[in-house]
Amino acid sequence: MKIVQLAALIERVPPRRYGGIERFVHYLTEELVRRGHEVTLFATADSKTKAKLVSSAPHPLREMHVADTAAFTLLNVARVYNNAAKFDIIHNQLDYFALPTAALSETPTITTLHGSINLENKHIYKECEDQNFVSISNAQRKGGENLNWRATIHHGIPVEKFPYSDKAEDYLLYVGRISLEKGTHIAMDVAKALNKKLIIAAKLDKADVDYFNQYVAPRLYNEKISWVGEVGDEERNKLMSKALCLFHPVTWPEPFGLAMVEAMACGSPVIAFREGSIPEIVENNKTGFVVEKEKEMINAVRKIKLISRKACRRHIEKNFSLKKMADA
Amino acid sequence: MKIVQLAALIERVPPRRYGGIERFVHYLTEELVRRGHEVTLFATADSKTKAKLVSSAPHPLREMHVADTAAFTLLNVARVYNNAAKFDIIHNQLDYFALPTAALSETPTITTLHGSINLENKHIYKECEDQNFVSISNAQRKGGENLNWRATIHHGIPVEKFPYSDKAEDYLLYVGRISLEKGTHIAMDVAKALNKKLIIAAKLDKADVDYFNQYVAPRLYNEKISWVGEVGDEERNKLMSKALCLFHPVTWPEPFGLAMVEAMACGSPVIAFREGSIPEIVENNKTGFVVEKEKEMINAVRKIKLISRKACRRHIEKNFSLKKMADA
Repeated sequence: MKIVQLAALIERVPPRRYGGIERFVHYLTEELVRRGHEVTLFATADSKTKAKLVSSAPHPLREMHVADTAAFTLLNVARVYNNAAKFDIIHNQLDYFALPTAALSETPTITTLHGSINLENKHIYKECEDQNFVSISNAQRKGGENLNWRATIHHGIPVEKFPYSDKAEDYLLYVGRISLEKGTHIAMDVAKALNKKLIIAAKLDKADVDYFNQYVAPRLYNEKISWVGEVGDEERNKLMSKALCLFHPVTWPEPFGLAMVEAMACGSPVIAFREGSIPEIVENNKTGFVVEKEKEMINAVRKIKLISRKACRRHIEKNFSLKKMADA
Repeated sequence: MKIVQLAALIERVPPRRYGGIERFVHYLTEELVRRGHEVTLFATADSKTKAKLVSSAPHPLREMHVADTAAFTLLNVARVYNNAAKFDIIHNQLDYFALPTAALSETPTITTLHGSINLENKHIYKECEDQNFVSISNAQRKGGENLNWRATIHHGIPVEKFPYSDKAEDYLLYVGRISLEKGTHIAMDVAKALNKKLIIAAKLDKADVDYFNQYVAPRLYNEKISWVGEVGDEERNKLMSKALCLFHPVTWPEPFGLAMVEAMACGSPVIAFREGSIPEIVENNKTGFVVEKEKEMINAVRKIKLISRKACRRHIEKNFSLKKMADA
């Protein structure tokens, strides 16, 4: 099949560092190529792929500090749909940005939704509800129950590429992005209550600087807590394979948390709140602990050795493999 | 004809206070209705119009403090194009936001461009250059010379609604928005150099607060300079009709400055830099002064009495009437 992958331009595919969505697009694109499909990836020019690449920006918009990101995103949409007749199917990874245009195209579009449906964007999803949607968790459908959902497909990863370690070192790990909704300060408070080492491997966006100054910076006056900035894949995987556990204290209904899957592949259990997709990803008491309150997080760390690291790896091999995702 | 006016949702049509684009859309919509066209205005629910109104937001997005404005803008686009078959022509006032979708619609779209073409958006205009564009000044075409321009149509206003005054009071006037590119601090410096009263009737957006704190606030320690905030139409027109002149020290190639036209209609000459559309709007030495440097602005104020206020009014009646715009 002639397949378009219409990717975001904010990060490279795959991302240099942070970027769960772009990591997913990368895994899927390469697997589809491997299976013999004729895939065209619409992404940044510096993306790495075996698919045909059409670029609408030389570098990731985040690195270029582009102010008007919508102009580039809609350029990418226009490039795809102005050439839609050449393709059998368009796989949209841009959430609602492609929907008004997709509605008018003769080439079918399938939208894998990455964001959540909220008060501000629910109207455009409703207006376009007849289009084809794939959710990345069942929880994600909340607020958009009437959309034409075709399936829920959990993200899969090439498990064999993630280094597994049976033995942990004595530190807690937080990865991703520093922000209120990701709960960075909660991870710090739990580490402090336990007097445990915490490594924060995360980026800081401009939009989150107020949060950082108010909530995170004061908590860095603790020599057991270290913020190592954004890290590349190799270092990130190493940190994951040696962590006592991954802390994922997000406080909003995250549609999917790829980092949790990657951490478990490396053997690291996950401690997270019962929010959004998390109960679908972490098996409570088997591959980590899904809790309600901060206090329970403290207890969860105390009993983390009860979780088998091998079970974490197996859970991902069985349920979140690239093969399973691409088959779906 | 069955005409769609696809308006922005950031302000009401007409705007409560600030909003040159929404003022233009209002004038044009009402004139088309008056001429017997069947017009449907896609705008905020609180808009005032004799056209049929389809709303995609209850209030202006600015007043609602919407974070994800693109979701509403694209909702508005989707609503128009999902119903395009009911209309003869779609008049797009959203700049590039409608272009990817317009390209696929059987109903023709004409885009009156309001913004300027810059390094970030020039690619999407190029991708969609075969669509129909109207420029609001000749200067606006810079950087997009290859677009399929159908005409340049200067904004027109219902001149009879603007109060003309033959006599000025002894103050300079600045209206619109406080921002670096609008040159608020330049107006303040010129007023200070002349020891003249300056009234600043302008809004302050969140994005411009840094500029305000650094450049504007310190210059407010001058009792001859007063910032009166955003003002409504009536007060604004009154200020314009009594001003010695309108100061319009924009430092970027503004595609069109509706406030200049309105001020001249009220009898107020305009002093502005030779940027963008300004030489097309202000007749140098006849309806104001078009200058190169800040120092010349000072001299221009000194000789402002040489400009006939009646000539300003006549210039607008002749060249920037609503009739002339709607005929075009």
